[in-house]
Amino acid sequence: MNAYDQIAIGDIHVFGKHTFTAEGIRRFAAKYDPQVFHLDEEAARQSLFGGLCASGWHTAAVMMRLLVDYFDARDAKARAAGQPPLVSGPSPGLDDLRWPNPVRPGDVVEFTARIVGKRLSKSRPGWGLLSMTTTGVKQTGEVVFMVTTHAFVETGQPAPIVAGAPSA
Amino acid sequence: MNAYDQIAIGDIHVFGKHTFTAEGIRRFAAKYDPQVFHLDEEAARQSLFGGLCASGWHTAAVMMRLLVDYFDARDAKARAAGQPPLVSGPSPGLDDLRWPNPVRPGDVVEFTARIVGKRLSKSRPGWGLLSMTTTGVKQTGEVVFMVTTHAFVETGQPAPIVAGAPSA
Repeated sequence: MNAYDQIAIGDIHVFGKHTFTAEGIRRFAAKYDPQVFHLDEEAARQSLFGGLCASGWHTAAVMMRLLVDYFDARDAKARAAGQPPLVSGPSPGLDDLRWPNPVRPGDVVEFTARIVGKRLSKSRPGWGLLSMTTTGVKQTGEVVFMVTTHAFVETGQPAPIVAGAPSA
Repeated sequence: MNAYDQIAIGDIHVFGKHTFTAEGIRRFAAKYDPQVFHLDEEAARQSLFGGLCASGWHTAAVMMRLLVDYFDARDAKARAAGQPPLVSGPSPGLDDLRWPNPVRPGDVVEFTARIVGKRLSKSRPGWGLLSMTTTGVKQTGEVVFMVTTHAFVETGQPAPIVAGAPSA
């Protein structure tokens, strides 16, 4: 059974945790999102946030890093067991990204995904499209991040013969 | 007239351009999205991408930086003219993010936004919610990025009196 066939709608994948520090929050913000409430504790206290908080793009980037590490570790295990790894390709995009609560210095956010969609690609024979909803929850139980992402993965099946397609 | 009132649905904001380099693509990927097709030219050539390309999260982070710089410059101009700046608060999230084409080393991507929504916030008196659709187009004319983001901005109006709310 190939890696694509082993993934089922409803599967849960726990990517892991990340601790956000004030320094890490400021470093990301200085490069990609230099708004005062991500950079300056005092200015942040005067803002609607009431204190320093991470850029939402920082939270998203951290999620992506944990996702990649998680699937890399999973693939290494598969290879060690003589099984094929899950081969990922491009992502067409994502939907419904939400930042319902701020991420503060010291917050520990755990990201967990659920497979919510799986189908063969119409545009790319031999590839499937996986969709998953990933949630980031911090130590207080508050949800700080939600998103539904989509990605192409190899099905391990030969490309189907399409009626009427050129034979060459 | 305050800054919120000066923004109208249909307004276009040209954030500016960014040139993606192989080094910049690899640096972002090494930290946040270490998939081979963002890190290794040869492995990328063997992948569905056919060559090195930027992490989609990198493209998004670059868009955010140009957005912040653009509104900072706009606010500086407003302040110099004795006008109030646009005060931004949290973003509840975003919708329909798409990466329709890869960003390659040497690509110059220009990001342009259109205001697509503007309303007073129900949950945060004195604040409005702006929505904009931002598109990233590279020098070939190909669209590489699309997203509709939402953000709270100060309306400059006092919070309305809510019937039945406590007077203290």
